[in-house]
Amino acid sequence: MSQTTSQIEEFNRIFDAHKNEIQDNFFTFLKFESIGAEPEYTEQTRSCAEWLCTYLSNVGLTSEIIQTPGHPLVFAEWNKAGSNAPTLLIYGHYDVQPVDPIELWTSPPFIPTIKDGNVYARGAQDDKGQIFYTISAIASLLKEKKTLPVNIKMCIEGEEENGSAGFQSVLSSLSDKLKADYLVVVDIGFNSISRPTVTVGTRGLVAMSLEVVGSNTDLHSGSHGGVAFNPNHALIQMLNSIRNVDGKITIKGFYDDVVVPNKSEFAKFDCSFDEVEYEQFTGAKPVGGEKEFSPFESKCTRPTVEINGISGGYAGNGFKTVIPSRACAKISARLVPNQDPDKIANLISEHLISQAPNGISANVTIHKGTGKPLRTSTDSKIVKAASQAFADVTGEHCRLALHGASIPISPSLAAASGAELVLIGYGLPSDMIHAPNENFGLDRFKMGFVTICRLLDLISQVE
Amino acid sequence: MSQTTSQIEEFNRIFDAHKNEIQDNFFTFLKFESIGAEPEYTEQTRSCAEWLCTYLSNVGLTSEIIQTPGHPLVFAEWNKAGSNAPTLLIYGHYDVQPVDPIELWTSPPFIPTIKDGNVYARGAQDDKGQIFYTISAIASLLKEKKTLPVNIKMCIEGEEENGSAGFQSVLSSLSDKLKADYLVVVDIGFNSISRPTVTVGTRGLVAMSLEVVGSNTDLHSGSHGGVAFNPNHALIQMLNSIRNVDGKITIKGFYDDVVVPNKSEFAKFDCSFDEVEYEQFTGAKPVGGEKEFSPFESKCTRPTVEINGISGGYAGNGFKTVIPSRACAKISARLVPNQDPDKIANLISEHLISQAPNGISANVTIHKGTGKPLRTSTDSKIVKAASQAFADVTGEHCRLALHGASIPISPSLAAASGAELVLIGYGLPSDMIHAPNENFGLDRFKMGFVTICRLLDLISQVE
Repeated sequence: MSQTTSQIEEFNRIFDAHKNEIQDNFFTFLKFESIGAEPEYTEQTRSCAEWLCTYLSNVGLTSEIIQTPGHPLVFAEWNKAGSNAPTLLIYGHYDVQPVDPIELWTSPPFIPTIKDGNVYARGAQDDKGQIFYTISAIASLLKEKKTLPVNIKMCIEGEEENGSAGFQSVLSSLSDKLKADYLVVVDIGFNSISRPTVTVGTRGLVAMSLEVVGSNTDLHSGSHGGVAFNPNHALIQMLNSIRNVDGKITIKGFYDDVVVPNKSEFAKFDCSFDEVEYEQFTGAKPVGGEKEFSPFESKCTRPTVEINGISGGYAGNGFKTVIPSRACAKISARLVPNQDPDKIANLISEHLISQAPNGISANVTIHKGTGKPLRTSTDSKIVKAASQAFADVTGEHCRLALHGASIPISPSLAAASGAELVLIGYGLPSDMIHAPNENFGLDRFKMGFVTICRLLDLISQVE
Repeated sequence: MSQTTSQIEEFNRIFDAHKNEIQDNFFTFLKFESIGAEPEYTEQTRSCAEWLCTYLSNVGLTSEIIQTPGHPLVFAEWNKAGSNAPTLLIYGHYDVQPVDPIELWTSPPFIPTIKDGNVYARGAQDDKGQIFYTISAIASLLKEKKTLPVNIKMCIEGEEENGSAGFQSVLSSLSDKLKADYLVVVDIGFNSISRPTVTVGTRGLVAMSLEVVGSNTDLHSGSHGGVAFNPNHALIQMLNSIRNVDGKITIKGFYDDVVVPNKSEFAKFDCSFDEVEYEQFTGAKPVGGEKEFSPFESKCTRPTVEINGISGGYAGNGFKTVIPSRACAKISARLVPNQDPDKIANLISEHLISQAPNGISANVTIHKGTGKPLRTSTDSKIVKAASQAFADVTGEHCRLALHGASIPISPSLAAASGAELVLIGYGLPSDMIHAPNENFGLDRFKMGFVTICRLLDLISQVE
């Protein structure tokens, strides 16, 4: 048995020894309704942060709550590995997505329910599950070995799902506290457990709300149809103008700064995309991008503008012959290098406002939390160590990946901490994150635990 | 004092004598949450019909509930004027519109509240208010005079706001019962009390729901953006294709059967439309129609397609970076002579389905209740009698009007009863029908009462 294999076995044994306690605490964590984006959950979100802070302290880290203009940040550290040992900064978040449409959940989103080896709950994977196997690994190692091979800093925030505006605004004041050699963002995954990857690029994100108003009050569509300009028509006309039938965004300047990876860059990435499997799994044909690009290219190397929500008038049961006074849309863009979030937000906003027809007033509110696109070095020490850890635990070759999603704080956090960055995690497409029936496999929770244990060792060996 | 003037004074005196009792019963009628379109209000809608039937019986009419596949029809009659006296059929409805957006109501929609001489409640005007001054006039005349100058039949249905499908389906079986000389539909109004009109034309109505589906479940807009086709984008693209920037409906064949009134026809109508007053009152610029037509023409002589509701994804507080699995829209068309509702519904439906992009499945459900456009004789006896009654009560010359709204059952009811038809009422634009804070002036309620009393006398004098 190789040294690696025996070490992995040891970490598995440690997990099994603490399994019940880990799961109990994980479920407590999942029960907090920490929907950061919805104001009515502010208290629950704060309670979640406080519980987490206490928990980290109980397992042997020095922890504190750092206030932000939004939800609090939980910071914890353990620095007894000595000043010669490297310092690893770990990032995750305790806030979760809203639960609508609630009627499609087969079990209540805040009562963790195990079915066929998976935990079903909002946040089961994103990101409570991923951050909790990480914490559990550190906690269990401390309990078993009374020490860790590296110094640890953790920051676990409460606004990732809403753009990290609070954390972002206090970041510069925390740069001493966050100083580290390596930064591991544990909030991501890959397409298949048999093709593990670590991620070296994510898309940026900007989001905004558009509201159009046509009248003081809702109007009768018989008495006013053909007279008042229907805000639903205006919204549709304006939103339709941002994208053509070939999937191209038609906002002037939108693609100007896009840098397309060249062939040699592509060779380093896992570019696999199984169209048949995708359709079988999601029910969606992978035809939503620009016609000239493949689904993989569209997802990882091309920017998008997506309409995340539309609402106007009466869309319930039966019928209401109304011309609504207003209609609204939620719009977000995913950005790639070297697009600038503020510039793109303004381009979209100005375009939309310019499209408002006569008789309609339009207003765009750009959401505070924005994130730059991220593309990190493909051959840094932390990327190599993380790849090795995933390979050791899964038994598969670990590739590099670009990811379509965004972790808006990542680039700024890397800059503030001065650390080399990699993004890791055991998420799979079947976890249904951001959707009803989010779930996470307990087998992957354990693999995540073991991977973190192994990664700490590998980092301690980096020269 | 002329005979007319003294008769009007007498009717005013009768109203005043019964005022408190009338108002008490009117408020009881308004308290029923008879939202016919929403299944959860089915019981309240039925209770409203039962109360109304009992009330009509208590005031001296023979009344009954007639079952339909939808909500019941209340039928009542009084036929003691003798076989030589004409028979007047009166139509109205006890169902009301939904109350959303409920948060914009300044008093609860089903607790009638008097403010500045107006009653605020859902249905205060449309149509509980209008049908109740009609009933009250008949009831009070019976109480005071023990007789009426004409035979009366009333049918008050429960699905007008939802297209009258139930009444429509039993209509042919009721033609003997409904046989009448004249039909007065009491469910309409005019723009200003100083310019009263009676209505000789309404637009037809068809309505449908469109649903587009892209995936089995909501998807994360980072992981799937640029891959899955967003149903919100599909809905917008499809809906945008039905109307161009000049307000023209671009569905092939939509205008084919439209008959435009000629100049001599226009001369008979009140074509007044005060654009400044309209904007002051509604907050809307009257620019929603086809560019080449005036607001009056657009409202009364041109068909429309309106999007009454859109919904897809998350449009609440904060933000949810989601690609929804589905999106939907509620669409209706107002029709003018000689458009056929079924033909137009199919044209719209087929057009929408044909516009569904690759990767999106689309489904259209055509709503059952449709109504033909109506244009009745401008010089019939009932039109003249009604015009005279409004002139006598308001002291103003009464003109003829075309109306943009629809009372879907009117043309079929006129055909089934064999009666000459006119549409009347004391509605004003400020009544906010179909909108939050619907209200009706108590002064107009009384004028309506007196007008009905006067109309019965005038009809009895028709030769």
